[in-house]
Amino acid sequence: GVKPVGSEIVGLLPKKAIEMAADFFLQLENFSPAQVFENKLADALSGAPLMTAKDGKLVGLARPFLEAVAAPTATPGGGSVSAFAGALAASLGHMVAGLSRKKKSQAAHVDQLSAALDDMRRTAEKLAEEIDRDAESYNAVMAAFKLPQGNAEEARLREEAIQKATKEAAEVPLQVAERTVALFERLGQLDGIVAASMRSDLQVARLMASAGARGALANVESNLDGLTDAAYVKSMRAKAAALRERLGDAPRAISA
Amino acid sequence: GVKPVGSEIVGLLPKKAIEMAADFFLQLENFSPAQVFENKLADALSGAPLMTAKDGKLVGLARPFLEAVAAPTATPGGGSVSAFAGALAASLGHMVAGLSRKKKSQAAHVDQLSAALDDMRRTAEKLAEEIDRDAESYNAVMAAFKLPQGNAEEARLREEAIQKATKEAAEVPLQVAERTVALFERLGQLDGIVAASMRSDLQVARLMASAGARGALANVESNLDGLTDAAYVKSMRAKAAALRERLGDAPRAISA
Repeated sequence: GVKPVGSEIVGLLPKKAIEMAADFFLQLENFSPAQVFENKLADALSGAPLMTAKDGKLVGLARPFLEAVAAPTATPGGGSVSAFAGALAASLGHMVAGLSRKKKSQAAHVDQLSAALDDMRRTAEKLAEEIDRDAESYNAVMAAFKLPQGNAEEARLREEAIQKATKEAAEVPLQVAERTVALFERLGQLDGIVAASMRSDLQVARLMASAGARGALANVESNLDGLTDAAYVKSMRAKAAALRERLGDAPRAISA
Repeated sequence: GVKPVGSEIVGLLPKKAIEMAADFFLQLENFSPAQVFENKLADALSGAPLMTAKDGKLVGLARPFLEAVAAPTATPGGGSVSAFAGALAASLGHMVAGLSRKKKSQAAHVDQLSAALDDMRRTAEKLAEEIDRDAESYNAVMAAFKLPQGNAEEARLREEAIQKATKEAAEVPLQVAERTVALFERLGQLDGIVAASMRSDLQVARLMASAGARGALANVESNLDGLTDAAYVKSMRAKAAALRERLGDAPRAISA
């Protein structure tokens, strides 16, 4: 094959790409774009809006989602929070893999840690998208319940719409549960190759993945309670039970 | 006593106070300030920046914190994520209490649910603040490790600073654990008085509180490993063990 001996950037590229590339290749310890003087200057000039006198820096990032959850509206509810917990677990796994990869002590595991880094980023992205999908599927169920039921035909169509929307509202958390259980297992495999100082971070990531998976399964089951298609319900319950076992739970009796 | 027969607002007050008061007293179902026409108009005029073509509405709120966690910097790490999980649990509890309180079916429990609503809001706020406190206490430990150790006196002062900062870094997650365990118990007490349709949301809230508590305890223990004050370590381990028991874990042997 041909080995490139040089490269050139034609045109413009985002500053962030440069910072990320520098971080990646230099394997800097604890590098943050905030350490770039021009960025610090820009932050200072813009008045750093997230850093208010009252709020710490991080709570400012956390607050918008917390407030959306706390609001007395049914969405975002437990399903979205479960998907978010999974995304949080993957993000923490991403941090652990990223920091471990730069430690001399973990040099033997660089390839595995780089693969984990990619995996965690993709998983965090997928689970973050499920936050909205769950809310949308719940809203669709609510919309079906509001359909007219003035006569027998309308009532039949409404019931059909409810059943269809409720199946979808069970499928979304099942997918979240599948992803978070796989994530839970993947995080467990990292235990032997991450830096010792990051073990407790990895442990928190596993706790969040497990809580996200269990929360998603609670949402699957809650939706199954409203369905009349016994064969479908039975097959979904079997899938949920298999996922619970992978989380280390004792198998439970499966009923239709 | 004297019974007020009227009241008057002198001067200005925030629009949000009016909306919240309307929501509280009218006990509206699913009310959101977005239903206020002027708010809708203001959102439309401001270009609703969080709603991009690619991102769903909720993931836009979730992403800033997820990205801060995923970044290859030691903070925010597992301690901050644990505090955030607790804040998320309290926020979800707030939603459940707020929606249940408005249901005719739960009319008998309005006072208890209103008390829970207040409690959940305060708890969410306190735990959200711990997100930054945890990061700051960890950064203080890192700063102590970077102190000079050129001679015996410097080395002694550095070791003292490390021990002091590490104690503080154990106290913060212990406080998070205390708050989230109390929250876990409080959420359990709500089980009998919330609307049946919100049971799975309450279940997710309990899972998040439990995961937050366990994550915080993992961080307490990880910091205790670095301490030389055996009496202090023993007393902290006893507190951690007592909290684990309240989460339903079997008691573990306590060692200094």
